[in-house]
Amino acid sequence: MPNPNAAQAPVTVIGLGLMGQALAAAFLKNGHPTTVWNRSADKADELVATGAALAASVKDAVEASPLVVVCVSDYAAAHELLDPLAGSLAGRTLVNLGSASSSQARDTAKWAKDHEAAGYLDGAIMAFPAGIGTDAAVLLHSGPKSAYDEHEATLKALAPAATLYLGEDPGLASLHDVALLGVMWGIQNSFLHGAALLGAAGVKATDFATLATPLIAVVAQTVDAYAAQVDAGEYPGDDASVATHVGSMAHLLDESKELGVNTELPALFKAFGDRAMAAGHASSGYAALIEQFRKPSA
Amino acid sequence: MPNPNAAQAPVTVIGLGLMGQALAAAFLKNGHPTTVWNRSADKADELVATGAALAASVKDAVEASPLVVVCVSDYAAAHELLDPLAGSLAGRTLVNLGSASSSQARDTAKWAKDHEAAGYLDGAIMAFPAGIGTDAAVLLHSGPKSAYDEHEATLKALAPAATLYLGEDPGLASLHDVALLGVMWGIQNSFLHGAALLGAAGVKATDFATLATPLIAVVAQTVDAYAAQVDAGEYPGDDASVATHVGSMAHLLDESKELGVNTELPALFKAFGDRAMAAGHASSGYAALIEQFRKPSA
Repeated sequence: MPNPNAAQAPVTVIGLGLMGQALAAAFLKNGHPTTVWNRSADKADELVATGAALAASVKDAVEASPLVVVCVSDYAAAHELLDPLAGSLAGRTLVNLGSASSSQARDTAKWAKDHEAAGYLDGAIMAFPAGIGTDAAVLLHSGPKSAYDEHEATLKALAPAATLYLGEDPGLASLHDVALLGVMWGIQNSFLHGAALLGAAGVKATDFATLATPLIAVVAQTVDAYAAQVDAGEYPGDDASVATHVGSMAHLLDESKELGVNTELPALFKAFGDRAMAAGHASSGYAALIEQFRKPSA
Repeated sequence: MPNPNAAQAPVTVIGLGLMGQALAAAFLKNGHPTTVWNRSADKADELVATGAALAASVKDAVEASPLVVVCVSDYAAAHELLDPLAGSLAGRTLVNLGSASSSQARDTAKWAKDHEAAGYLDGAIMAFPAGIGTDAAVLLHSGPKSAYDEHEATLKALAPAATLYLGEDPGLASLHDVALLGVMWGIQNSFLHGAALLGAAGVKATDFATLATPLIAVVAQTVDAYAAQVDAGEYPGDDASVATHVGSMAHLLDESKELGVNTELPALFKAFGDRAMAAGHASSGYAALIEQFRKPSA
């Protein structure tokens, strides 16, 4: 909760797409003097009406605060804006919340250091704009621990329940971001495949969701157990063996063929299962498939 | 909860693997006179010690109860056991809880009808043996509603919180089973891929799970919204567009290549996203991918 008695640190937000606007609004709500800038200044209207200062130039925006949060479409856009202003960065901490790869994050960290920024944090937002500032938001950060510690209290305005620090390597936030998105797509794609399959038999997707939603929550609980097995390098098959899973995967593949829906997802699942069997893991548990996911594709 | 004052219906369980033993134990615990049979009779020892009657032959087992639950490895094994006993089925209801395809379930329903069984229900168990009889178990049934209604109270001993009836088509239980397993594999595979990716950057799978587990629970909630969009045939992109997802999928694919882990799962995800874009769904929401999952593979 905002503390109206505390002297809150000033912050600048550059880039006022839906997400940037949500970030600036959350800082304002928490009492931070907030300077904003966007290429199209009209995107700032609502924020200015609630107390934000609109900078006349991106240079003025950077120079207004010790903490500069950038949220533009990609790293190319961020560099296009910031490269001419490198001299203004000295002593400030830059937080990039736009989409990026881990190597771009590392490159930008080096660039920021070369220009005497006090620190560079790469961040990833696991939330929709409407979730920013609520307990639904998760914000991941990586880069110098000292920079994170200095600005953690300010950054918590964005994700009060889950503002997380992952480590010194600036690439870690991006890497976690895509790995977590991968899990999201894994769920959504397999749900949509199942909905297509059952739809071909006349079942509504909403009826399938009634069964799938609680199942997903149950499977979430098994992930912890599999993770521990992955770290230990041992995969006891005490719930169900890889061989049992592969047998059921063959059923999913056959049903998909028979009902004329796409087979690529179940075929890939079965391929990983088959490879784990071939590698001697027929009686291991499912986590044994980690060894297949570690192998570069042929 | 078992009601010791009620006269519970007799039931037979054929097949005493880990799952069959759990089924028989749950019936016994609920006060049902329970007859069991297994090819290797010693699997029945523990059940007999707690009150089960061990039938001398599979014929005696079938003839002991109006409700016969079969839980053997597959349909071939079920038919090998039951085909010679077809004459004993008349007037009884057969419930097959072994692994099957929907067409095998339909064939068996026809076979049971031809032999004057009172009813044939095909079932699918969404639980590990240890979960049978607890609120964690989900049991799916399909086939004649009259047969289900007659035996629902008995079947509820297996999954007291979630004994479900899906419809008259005997194939529906198997179809839901594999579709739900597909969702489970979708979660586990994408988690394992992410664990491999982050593992290549020195992150432990258990640390990744700490972030992934709550995310999975959040994504479970979005499935309902997507399901409604699938049924409506409209996919508003009000959270994130397909184009935005595809951009992030490219990151996941690139990071996987760069860190030398398997790329097949992210490549397939991106292929579905690319196809949805090519079909005019760049600014639609993610549920638009259903149209790609409905298409037979090339």
